[in-house]
Amino acid sequence: MSLLVVGSVALDTIETPFGRADRVAGGSAVYISAASSYFTAPIRLVGVVGSDFPKSEIDFLQSRGVDLEGLQVIEGGKTFFWSGRYHYDLNERDSLDTQLNVFEKFNPVLPDSYRKSSYVVLGNIDPVLQLRVIDSLEKKPELIVCDTMNFWIERKHDELLETLKRVDVLIVNDSEARLLTSEPNLVKASRKIMKLGPRIIIIKKGEHGALLFTNDTIFSAPAFPLEFIYDPTGAGDSFAGGFIGHLARTEDLSDHNLKRAVIYGSVLASFCVGKFGTEALKDLSDIEIHRRYRDFIELSKFED
Amino acid sequence: MSLLVVGSVALDTIETPFGRADRVAGGSAVYISAASSYFTAPIRLVGVVGSDFPKSEIDFLQSRGVDLEGLQVIEGGKTFFWSGRYHYDLNERDSLDTQLNVFEKFNPVLPDSYRKSSYVVLGNIDPVLQLRVIDSLEKKPELIVCDTMNFWIERKHDELLETLKRVDVLIVNDSEARLLTSEPNLVKASRKIMKLGPRIIIIKKGEHGALLFTNDTIFSAPAFPLEFIYDPTGAGDSFAGGFIGHLARTEDLSDHNLKRAVIYGSVLASFCVGKFGTEALKDLSDIEIHRRYRDFIELSKFED
Repeated sequence: MSLLVVGSVALDTIETPFGRADRVAGGSAVYISAASSYFTAPIRLVGVVGSDFPKSEIDFLQSRGVDLEGLQVIEGGKTFFWSGRYHYDLNERDSLDTQLNVFEKFNPVLPDSYRKSSYVVLGNIDPVLQLRVIDSLEKKPELIVCDTMNFWIERKHDELLETLKRVDVLIVNDSEARLLTSEPNLVKASRKIMKLGPRIIIIKKGEHGALLFTNDTIFSAPAFPLEFIYDPTGAGDSFAGGFIGHLARTEDLSDHNLKRAVIYGSVLASFCVGKFGTEALKDLSDIEIHRRYRDFIELSKFED
Repeated sequence: MSLLVVGSVALDTIETPFGRADRVAGGSAVYISAASSYFTAPIRLVGVVGSDFPKSEIDFLQSRGVDLEGLQVIEGGKTFFWSGRYHYDLNERDSLDTQLNVFEKFNPVLPDSYRKSSYVVLGNIDPVLQLRVIDSLEKKPELIVCDTMNFWIERKHDELLETLKRVDVLIVNDSEARLLTSEPNLVKASRKIMKLGPRIIIIKKGEHGALLFTNDTIFSAPAFPLEFIYDPTGAGDSFAGGFIGHLARTEDLSDHNLKRAVIYGSVLASFCVGKFGTEALKDLSDIEIHRRYRDFIELSKFED
């Protein structure tokens, strides 16, 4: 089924103790699109870049079947640039440089061909823009998934609450869930978020996996215990991509299938961190994805 | 099967945002014994208290079938006292007072009747004393489980390494595993610990559950998503008690059964934190334990 992805498109320079990548494609829309492309089609990307965005990265997204009609290219402009350095303990990182460039004035305009998308992911951007995207849709989608971050929770709190009223799924990490609700207990925090609008809450906990909350179920998904993690960048967006990709593919929003989708999200995140940038999302095979999914079953299964 | 438990016996004064408990029984030997008493018998406790240790707490342990022949009572001495205050975010606490008292010169002496115990848990005490206990055993037990903490990893590193050579299972939390191995990646850390002696490693992650590592398997157990946590004190020791209790009851050390044991440990920890001190461990029923175990299955199960 058709999937609309709105978010940042960036050039990232990433250093980890295990290597370095210079000005590679990044940003939430790129990771979400690439990850979900292993599950569903068409994928429609809305974002903005400058004329410095490499053709090779455009080619990569097109090779994954991503429709780029909604990718605005600002002639003479520069693409959103981020640079960061991860510590030996990959849970910590320093942002070295952030240049918003053309992203600063990003206005997500949906081409007509995008307006009837069945599944929508609103990557982590200004909640005002997220709401604008929802308002531009011609028909109510099957599912709207929304990501956000501390910055918007603090700086655009009221605007975020308006957006949340209109989304079905909120994906946040544990610190964001706590900040949004002023509640350290994640079970209580998820209940509070449900009252704001979303009926499905996913709380990502990085190396500790993810929690899924619906009205009727709580599900705890492990993270894959990887011996080699090269670059955590994009793990959360890859998770969102695998999650929505599986749902768009199966068109089944039952609790059972939401659990599977959380595992597919975890599968894609586990691949993402095994290489630099989007490298791991360039050539996955269905067999690899299926095998990793089976490994997740083994990882969490115990006999009664 | 017979289970030997060696560790601290304390009086704790605990404050959390949800209440307060004054001078209630605590310490690793108490929590481990109480938790494991729901699974196996006899349980043989080795510890030390002063003459101020309340008879009501002795009665509690005896009512749980714990053999106290190995509990030394120092006449005129004072019991190990700890006082702490938990923050609203229960992951953080301040130690307000620590008085080692009679525990400072604790020498774990095993009564003759204890020397042939089949299962052994060495609670978090000086590794020199842990080794002394191992040396006092008349026959090699089926399983020796060892807990430790940052203090011993830093201050008695060489002594701890000697003890680890002799134990089968090390239970530590994630920060302890990282400190012991200088390795932030928990998969690699567990491999390093295996080279030190233990063939089974359990890494506790508090609200994020626990990981089990053996030669052939990795298992990720969720923590129970509790809406109400009153007092985290003793959760780790309750985990150890449920874990070893299930193994002593079943006498099955297969990977499959180790996974079940990790879940039973998680079950007992989840009950422990629902009341103050050892209160929740005083009157559990088999039905409650079984029901919570089933809840854990639901929590982590997804269909393939």
